[in-house]
Amino acid sequence: MAGKNVFYAQSGGVTSVINASALGVFDCVDAHPETFGQIFAGKNGIIGALTEELIDVGKLSQRERQGLLHTPAGAFGSCRYKLKDIDQQRAQYERLISVFKAHDIGYFFYNGGGDSQDTAHKVSQLSETLGYPITCIGVPKTIDNDLPHTDCCPGFGSVAKYVATSIREAALDVESMAASSTKVFILEVMGRHAGWIEGAAGLAQTDGHPAPQLILFPERTFDRAAVMAKIAESVAEHGFCALVASEGIRDASGRFVAETGVRDAFGHAQLGGVAQRLAEMVRDDLGLKYHYAIADYLQRSARHIASQTDVDQAYALGRHAALLAHQGANAVMPTIVRTNDAPYTYELSHAPLSEVANVERPMPDAFISEDGFSITEEARRYFD
Amino acid sequence: MAGKNVFYAQSGGVTSVINASALGVFDCVDAHPETFGQIFAGKNGIIGALTEELIDVGKLSQRERQGLLHTPAGAFGSCRYKLKDIDQQRAQYERLISVFKAHDIGYFFYNGGGDSQDTAHKVSQLSETLGYPITCIGVPKTIDNDLPHTDCCPGFGSVAKYVATSIREAALDVESMAASSTKVFILEVMGRHAGWIEGAAGLAQTDGHPAPQLILFPERTFDRAAVMAKIAESVAEHGFCALVASEGIRDASGRFVAETGVRDAFGHAQLGGVAQRLAEMVRDDLGLKYHYAIADYLQRSARHIASQTDVDQAYALGRHAALLAHQGANAVMPTIVRTNDAPYTYELSHAPLSEVANVERPMPDAFISEDGFSITEEARRYFD
Repeated sequence: MAGKNVFYAQSGGVTSVINASALGVFDCVDAHPETFGQIFAGKNGIIGALTEELIDVGKLSQRERQGLLHTPAGAFGSCRYKLKDIDQQRAQYERLISVFKAHDIGYFFYNGGGDSQDTAHKVSQLSETLGYPITCIGVPKTIDNDLPHTDCCPGFGSVAKYVATSIREAALDVESMAASSTKVFILEVMGRHAGWIEGAAGLAQTDGHPAPQLILFPERTFDRAAVMAKIAESVAEHGFCALVASEGIRDASGRFVAETGVRDAFGHAQLGGVAQRLAEMVRDDLGLKYHYAIADYLQRSARHIASQTDVDQAYALGRHAALLAHQGANAVMPTIVRTNDAPYTYELSHAPLSEVANVERPMPDAFISEDGFSITEEARRYFD
Repeated sequence: MAGKNVFYAQSGGVTSVINASALGVFDCVDAHPETFGQIFAGKNGIIGALTEELIDVGKLSQRERQGLLHTPAGAFGSCRYKLKDIDQQRAQYERLISVFKAHDIGYFFYNGGGDSQDTAHKVSQLSETLGYPITCIGVPKTIDNDLPHTDCCPGFGSVAKYVATSIREAALDVESMAASSTKVFILEVMGRHAGWIEGAAGLAQTDGHPAPQLILFPERTFDRAAVMAKIAESVAEHGFCALVASEGIRDASGRFVAETGVRDAFGHAQLGGVAQRLAEMVRDDLGLKYHYAIADYLQRSARHIASQTDVDQAYALGRHAALLAHQGANAVMPTIVRTNDAPYTYELSHAPLSEVANVERPMPDAFISEDGFSITEEARRYFD
């Protein structure tokens, strides 16, 4: 007799490798028909469960299914939708359980970051009291790299590679023309709360290449005078300065540097990111020619430059999630345990969702250099 | 007896494959010692000739030399520096010739776009009157793809691939989350005067993928109402809209859309590109959640995603430039002649610099669809 059915959903901001995790789950599930039945994916994540829009994974063509290994974004749709606490919105949990019941779902795989692991944890706690025991397994995913208990998070490695490669390439471009053209280049990247992504950009600083000469981390207070002085120093020393900035940097008053406060003629707030603000400061304080790029979604969807290790780990963690369920585990998330720095090796393990839910892993303070503008050797060992 | 020495210089905005052209020139030069002597590259382009800062290419290590095939940007430095007309600045031409004379330069290879071909042409015309006959060969290069007489220009193919890949990836990302998150994504790309780069982004619209639903070409007047209506229509039809905009689009009054006219509290002009302006319009007119990316230098330095055809052509044109000189040609630029669309095949030819200098090749009008927002089948045949 086939086992209970499986529900898989993608949650939160997507990555270039999240679909590899989906395939990992599916492959392992299909390898164990004694445990698992059919697989359904939620259309647009958990919303698909609430609206009962389920995608029958068994009906995917072989080409569609294998394509998951190479396709960025969320193949089944994802959503930014956080289930509220049970006492605030019990009806929603009841709805979820009733849809699970209707489709004989016995396994819930939730592929997401911290919030999603929290949801999976809640569902695991409540399923019994709501009269429907279900196995809940979290599948880690976040470009923010801030899930605890795991060496890294699927999605992050590829963004790290994108950012480090892009700043190296752009810096070579700027350097080669700096004598008569742009002297300061600014790349704005994601990572509002923790500097993991910016930190990875520091990897470009190898083989004698000075760029990026500055990294602005959200963990450090933005000091305009100090940053401008460092830019001027880099231009004096190398002829140019390439800078990577987190979208989330704040000044001493706690205000985001990206906030402009400027309104147009109609009173509409003027948009503008960190890169633009910094460029204005470079112009006003230093009078240097600048250019800036905003990577935005390009960095997290850039499947063309995904890290093979990241793809492998995303798939392996998906598989391991299903294996854990097969072995009878519940309320856990598979994790990566690093066993060696160089060459990088790792093993799979797992952690209880209760210890993962709502715990953010900050980038270690020891990863940021004393002046706050680059990464340390310790960070380099981690990122490399 | 060895022939006269060679001077090679890179000029104008660099590309991800310009160094491949350099290697092509060097390899062919070294294969003909009966014609050519030593090779010198100008440090920072033509400036290196004026300041007599010459790089002895013969002293490059094998690793450095072969690295040219894989390195973005200008390995010897480039510059934005246009020689004035002879009657305005005869002294500069005399200086150039005197440096050439001092180093026994008999061949001048100038690797650049329209302005650079004009310079090469002028030098070829004047060298005799200035008492120093020299063979001048242009080597085409420009991401703008606007040199005449050649099917395409080295550098463009790689930007085309970058832009088409990036908008497809980002569109998949946006599409997968549009139900609860961003609905409109804007990618700002280069191409101030002609829409070649934006047009190439249209290639992403294949295999049933609707994105990019809008392309804004500099060849078409920006009509805010029409653009917003098309965005709203795309969101209604596909749930999202991905848009590619040239930095150079202008409204009916001829003003760049990127011009803000907004000043901060200190009276400093507020920066902001086309993407930001469009995002503000989307917010104000449609109230839709948006994101935007500015590719800036990333697009032209992205060697990691360079088109192999582009790399091959860049190298082949460099070789052919030297071969032309070896065969006794002067004042010409090697060109690409397309011989078949699919599969794409081409032959090498050449055109006189007099017909290349200062002639911009616009994108054919027939490449832009009737509504002005996408490319035609004819364009697809060209770009594919």
